[in-house]
Amino acid sequence: MKIAFEKAGGLIPAIVQDFSTGDVLMLGFMNDVALAETQRTGEVVFFSRSRNKLWKKGESSGHLLKVRELRIDCDADAILARVDPVGPGVCHEGYRSCFFRKLGAGGEASVTEQRAFEPEQVYGAGKSTGEKR
Amino acid sequence: MKIAFEKAGGLIPAIVQDFSTGDVLMLGFMNDVALAETQRTGEVVFFSRSRNKLWKKGESSGHLLKVRELRIDCDADAILARVDPVGPGVCHEGYRSCFFRKLGAGGEASVTEQRAFEPEQVYGAGKSTGEKR
Repeated sequence: MKIAFEKAGGLIPAIVQDFSTGDVLMLGFMNDVALAETQRTGEVVFFSRSRNKLWKKGESSGHLLKVRELRIDCDADAILARVDPVGPGVCHEGYRSCFFRKLGAGGEASVTEQRAFEPEQVYGAGKSTGEKR
Repeated sequence: MKIAFEKAGGLIPAIVQDFSTGDVLMLGFMNDVALAETQRTGEVVFFSRSRNKLWKKGESSGHLLKVRELRIDCDADAILARVDPVGPGVCHEGYRSCFFRKLGAGGEASVTEQRAFEPEQVYGAGKSTGEKR
């Protein structure tokens, strides 16, 4: 099946879902090389739009995402990676999932989850507000 | 919380997850108006990149997505809509989820789910290969 990378300028969204719990953990983007590396290594590799290069999730934190299954949607322009996450959480802010804020009717966002780890201890001081890695 | 629509040219990915089962059903894109309409109506509204206009999911099929909760990720550039789906499936190819194909190591895709409905009966002849609505 030909994946429609060209449809969105070479990058397609990749949803990461916890294989065991079903929780949606994060969303990143993949180009063809990132997908090939994900398949070759069995660990999720994204393409970072801000750093403009391949980015293995967990490369600095150790919080790798072990792939159990990859799925592709009907239009072949979105990927679903069902994974076993390594470590207490995927989010650089210290949460299990990056989707830890609920969006209210007026646009306000409220935290609905408990922190799973201290980001400073994992990413080092000054990195807690940077991109998740 | 200010949502980072500008980061991706005005559109951010919106993951749709079944509130009850946790299954990821589909991925669409929202601009600020689509998100506002989703919040106002309580039903998921996307922005269609191919038709270049707002698109209420289910507008022709009746397979609406009733919002139970909206979440925003840490970088405020992806939305997670947890929904109660109306009808047997969201996919225009007749499946419960658009992610009904598993991606193999060699790039081959294999169908892993059972069809939930006949797309011709819902979308009409000739529409089954078009965009999901």
